[in-house]
Amino acid sequence: MADKPHVLIVGAGAIGGFYGAILQRAGARVSVVLRSDYAAVREAGFVIDSPLGDLSYRPDAVYYDGESAETIPDYVLCCVKVLPEVDRAALIAPWVGPDSCIVLIENGIDIEADIAAAFVDNPLISALAFIAVSRTGPGRIQHKAFGQLTLGAWPQGVSDACRALEVLLVAGGVKVKLAENVLAERWRKSLWNTPFNPLSVLAGGADTLTMLDSPGGEALVRDLMAEVMAVAAADGHPLPADAIDRNIAGTRQMPAYRNSMALDYLAGRAMEIDAILGNVVALAERHGVAVPRLRTLAATLAMRERLTTAPA
Amino acid sequence: MADKPHVLIVGAGAIGGFYGAILQRAGARVSVVLRSDYAAVREAGFVIDSPLGDLSYRPDAVYYDGESAETIPDYVLCCVKVLPEVDRAALIAPWVGPDSCIVLIENGIDIEADIAAAFVDNPLISALAFIAVSRTGPGRIQHKAFGQLTLGAWPQGVSDACRALEVLLVAGGVKVKLAENVLAERWRKSLWNTPFNPLSVLAGGADTLTMLDSPGGEALVRDLMAEVMAVAAADGHPLPADAIDRNIAGTRQMPAYRNSMALDYLAGRAMEIDAILGNVVALAERHGVAVPRLRTLAATLAMRERLTTAPA
Repeated sequence: MADKPHVLIVGAGAIGGFYGAILQRAGARVSVVLRSDYAAVREAGFVIDSPLGDLSYRPDAVYYDGESAETIPDYVLCCVKVLPEVDRAALIAPWVGPDSCIVLIENGIDIEADIAAAFVDNPLISALAFIAVSRTGPGRIQHKAFGQLTLGAWPQGVSDACRALEVLLVAGGVKVKLAENVLAERWRKSLWNTPFNPLSVLAGGADTLTMLDSPGGEALVRDLMAEVMAVAAADGHPLPADAIDRNIAGTRQMPAYRNSMALDYLAGRAMEIDAILGNVVALAERHGVAVPRLRTLAATLAMRERLTTAPA
Repeated sequence: MADKPHVLIVGAGAIGGFYGAILQRAGARVSVVLRSDYAAVREAGFVIDSPLGDLSYRPDAVYYDGESAETIPDYVLCCVKVLPEVDRAALIAPWVGPDSCIVLIENGIDIEADIAAAFVDNPLISALAFIAVSRTGPGRIQHKAFGQLTLGAWPQGVSDACRALEVLLVAGGVKVKLAENVLAERWRKSLWNTPFNPLSVLAGGADTLTMLDSPGGEALVRDLMAEVMAVAAADGHPLPADAIDRNIAGTRQMPAYRNSMALDYLAGRAMEIDAILGNVVALAERHGVAVPRLRTLAATLAMRERLTTAPA
């Protein structure tokens, strides 16, 4: 790795744009690859409002999707949505050098295998962002709270690349949790996301407390969480017995909250249904775990998707 | 019963207005009780477009909800939606004489008990309409197809009142099926309605083929039907083993079809969620039958209802 590490971010939306700011503050060379926001960011960089201060910055290079970089990145951060119609491996392929470390900062379960298969010789880091951040316009980002990254080597362990990335991120101002078993961390997050995200969509964009406080609502969320726990355990990542109680209690302590899928739904944006729910159901199938409630949500969402995407 | 039987219809919307036409054609005196369409029907009667011909008619009396009838009806037809916020017993009470036979032409499971409890001495007929009919404006009805009524005494048997009503209906031009066990008939209809109606709402108003043909769609519908069959059997009304196959095949033979709850949903009207789904889940609870998928639909619909009815 050169003295000044080179980080290239594919899909620099709210999350990618934010971590780019952090890494540039830490002294890294930060390149971004953009499509719809290319012109705006090339013109004026990123404008980022944050409780950490003004994080606005100009990337060291702004590439359009399909171009190629002058220098090979040490890290390629993949921050695009995980959608069936998006070939993420193809998106990052032009930017990945023989020694580039690939970092997935994305939601969901079982989202690494495609990338690992496409880049068998590259180190792969799986990362989860705990952050409230949104894109308010081309190149404009509002960072509201948090920012911690949980990361680990895929499928397990903490590599030197993880530690080097941690040093940069901490220098830039965010907390990092290094995870010996990052897949267990994904399941921990899935315990909340997999029930609440699809439910909020089927309930018309409902917030957390609307869901918990409607008749049968909390009972359903708990039953769905129990199904997720059963799949996690079958997949080798048992969660603590009190995980459901703690998740429900924690959710009740927060103000009513619309999750990311609810916001995508209300804005008419593509939703990460497979990453959050479909892949969990697929793993349940593979492990022979009965998940009738998760399957009900998945099939109902598929009906809705078919309806809204069918030609008129 | 007088020579000219008196039929009074409470809630003369599309269905009540249609059967009023049939019964008046058969020689009955037909009174209707209205609220929103009172002025229009008082002024111009019902205008009914039908494959049976022009069924337009003026009721023999048009009452406003809260008035009282000059003559006691032989039959009080209750054709209002079954909704938790509507006290149907209170709605029909002013019109029910000591010998009036109450006829419920309504959808759903377990919708008779409240009425039976409120009118313990009156004969009660439970009836299911197989009809495609809709209200196109105040007093204006479009009858598209069918019209058969399946009816029987509640909770079982075929009474003289059933046979007398059959004679009238057949004379007026519709088919009647007398059912020794009308509750079994309700379960037969519920096998289709209880899965498809709520699913269509959660799927955003999807039609039958969109639901069946989406990934996991037919499997979910079949699993939901199996849950309904288990509840029906526990409630004393086992359905034939091939009922699910026949329902799916029959649905696939019909053109893509939006059910009544989907239409109510798309029009922003109240939906008969309890009559179609909630009462089935309640019976499952009473009989100790596990219905995880039906519960998932019910709780998710409750979230949606809470969201859309909550004060802004």
